[in-house]
Amino acid sequence: MTALAPGNDRAALTLHDPETPFLALDRAKVRRNITRLRERLEPFPVSLRPHAKTAKSPEVARMFWDGGTGPLAVSTLAEAEAFADDGFTDILYAVGIAPSKLDRVLELRRRGVDLIVLLDSAEQAEAVAAASRAAGIAIPALIEIDCDGHRGGILPDDPRALSIAAILDGGGAELRGVLAHAGESYFCYTEEELVAAAENERRAAVDAAERLRQAGHVAPVVSIGSTPTALTVRDLTGVTEVRAGNYVFFDLVMAGIGVCSVDDLALSVIATVIGHRPEHGWTLIDGGWTATSRDRGTAEQSVDQGYGLVADLSGSLYPDLIMGGASQEHGVLSVREGSGASLPDLPLGTRVRILPNHACAMGTQHDRYQVHDGQSPTIAAVWQRTRGW
Amino acid sequence: MTALAPGNDRAALTLHDPETPFLALDRAKVRRNITRLRERLEPFPVSLRPHAKTAKSPEVARMFWDGGTGPLAVSTLAEAEAFADDGFTDILYAVGIAPSKLDRVLELRRRGVDLIVLLDSAEQAEAVAAASRAAGIAIPALIEIDCDGHRGGILPDDPRALSIAAILDGGGAELRGVLAHAGESYFCYTEEELVAAAENERRAAVDAAERLRQAGHVAPVVSIGSTPTALTVRDLTGVTEVRAGNYVFFDLVMAGIGVCSVDDLALSVIATVIGHRPEHGWTLIDGGWTATSRDRGTAEQSVDQGYGLVADLSGSLYPDLIMGGASQEHGVLSVREGSGASLPDLPLGTRVRILPNHACAMGTQHDRYQVHDGQSPTIAAVWQRTRGW
Repeated sequence: MTALAPGNDRAALTLHDPETPFLALDRAKVRRNITRLRERLEPFPVSLRPHAKTAKSPEVARMFWDGGTGPLAVSTLAEAEAFADDGFTDILYAVGIAPSKLDRVLELRRRGVDLIVLLDSAEQAEAVAAASRAAGIAIPALIEIDCDGHRGGILPDDPRALSIAAILDGGGAELRGVLAHAGESYFCYTEEELVAAAENERRAAVDAAERLRQAGHVAPVVSIGSTPTALTVRDLTGVTEVRAGNYVFFDLVMAGIGVCSVDDLALSVIATVIGHRPEHGWTLIDGGWTATSRDRGTAEQSVDQGYGLVADLSGSLYPDLIMGGASQEHGVLSVREGSGASLPDLPLGTRVRILPNHACAMGTQHDRYQVHDGQSPTIAAVWQRTRGW
Repeated sequence: MTALAPGNDRAALTLHDPETPFLALDRAKVRRNITRLRERLEPFPVSLRPHAKTAKSPEVARMFWDGGTGPLAVSTLAEAEAFADDGFTDILYAVGIAPSKLDRVLELRRRGVDLIVLLDSAEQAEAVAAASRAAGIAIPALIEIDCDGHRGGILPDDPRALSIAAILDGGGAELRGVLAHAGESYFCYTEEELVAAAENERRAAVDAAERLRQAGHVAPVVSIGSTPTALTVRDLTGVTEVRAGNYVFFDLVMAGIGVCSVDDLALSVIATVIGHRPEHGWTLIDGGWTATSRDRGTAEQSVDQGYGLVADLSGSLYPDLIMGGASQEHGVLSVREGSGASLPDLPLGTRVRILPNHACAMGTQHDRYQVHDGQSPTIAAVWQRTRGW
């Protein structure tokens, strides 16, 4: 903590310096991941709206836009407020709106931010319309379309879309369009399944938008996306914008799906060896679930990576070494069962990297990133993360 | 967030006011839980060293001591520093010491805090002795004794204890004693198993201390404890202090073990209903795993509570309603499978409480507590939590 207090000479610090555990971010990999999706979508006449919930950092968000600003999706109003403070003006709050949050939505719009909300019920539309009328500010909303039964939304042919649209457009708010998210794509394991999930997501959103337009609504926005479908989609006819978040850092769940390689993972926790239990085949580190999160997303995949793969500070993986166990401030490193690998010699004080099951969850456990570039251990910057709601 | 900015009139605020999701703490239950363990241990000539890692709050820590200060265990040096700032002077850092953390340990000792470290290897003892000599400050250490193979430590009869003791006492540091923790107790499901785990923990620590004393070391401290064993232990012969942490809040894992009832749970997340999917039997709320944590500790118990039981704001449980699913900012409430209960009518905007699987993990997701007393919804105080390491 103290090693990076403001005013210290950061140029001299490396990943060997900050007290462990801490969150490390490889900026070179972030840049590569951002470029990959941008190039992937370049042939399509759509805009990209990166989801900032993974990084929760204005510095990372500006990397999406070569140092400038552009459209963002966020998962909390705290993120929206932080990005607004940094100059972002086109923000989608992509969680179904609670009426009690509309004051903060209006405040952001008063500041000049085109803050768009999400909803899937007439009750929410009534609340949004009432707040719009009371403030004299039309709040724009997307209707959430459920394409695969994973969370909120209404089905593409649900007639309630028309009532919601009528309440918004007739009540002082604004129907901006529709949104779908292929939650199913996180459980796809072949290119074919991913392409099908992407097409299903597109079809659901486009169908819903067409129904609204046939009823006389403008509904200009058709927003779809998830990291797996954005990276595999082949047809974007009728879509106006693509959202994706996780791809900026990637993680072991995404590698398990096959949309990235382990070498693409930009985020890790760095921890220190504090003990050895050779009789159990364990090496203990000072990073537990407070540092990695309790997320065990790969437990449902064909290769269970425990709490994460283990690498050295330069990023080289130790063969079949995983963080197999975690308590609050202890991690237990062990060799993957049945692999035949042997426990590497990691003396007391050795620093190791833990690669995340789920980058969004690992990030949430921390307040800041120690930023470096590729194999260089030099800490180039310290970036804060937005917390809370 | 803004509703409780400093300077506002907090007296007027209730659990209906702060933006959701947020962490609520029932101070009346905390007081009751603290009293229970205190009374339980009163017949024994031991001191109590509560583990502050669950609450990470000076205000809660002072409740252990009727507003004063006393011994604490902590899981991070950031906690130690925060409690030192609040006047606590007897602090055990109960995670195996990494040599790179010794500068901060020395700094705390220079401030007048009796900061004690934990170790289980000659390498750590050498580092502690070297730091003590270099600073001219004897750092006291406990040797971690493994009583049930759950994490770090050496076995009670491991001859390495004597070499560690010799390095400390002969090298300018101080052997303060031994520590054991019955990690196994979290997997006990009968009173008989719990009593046996407590006796095993006591026996291991006392045996190890006796061996050290026979070799001429003073080793005054014999520290044992976990919430389940502290609440069931019948014999504390030879023990000088008992540690327990979770009991201050309790949680569904502890209720599953049987050492508390659900009514004892002091911590919860309050979230708002944002949608309904009656065709799936789902009610959606604006609290996901960022609010509850990903901890699913009850999944390994006989009754799986999902991401937590659901109650109304006054604390009354909805029959068999659990938070069955979670994404980053969405919780999915559903009725326990096979229960036959029906989904309660929870209109848009309704606030509900989610009770935690694991109080330590839910707490870590938040920066502060909204404190209330029992069924009163009035927010009596806002207490900050210590973050980071």
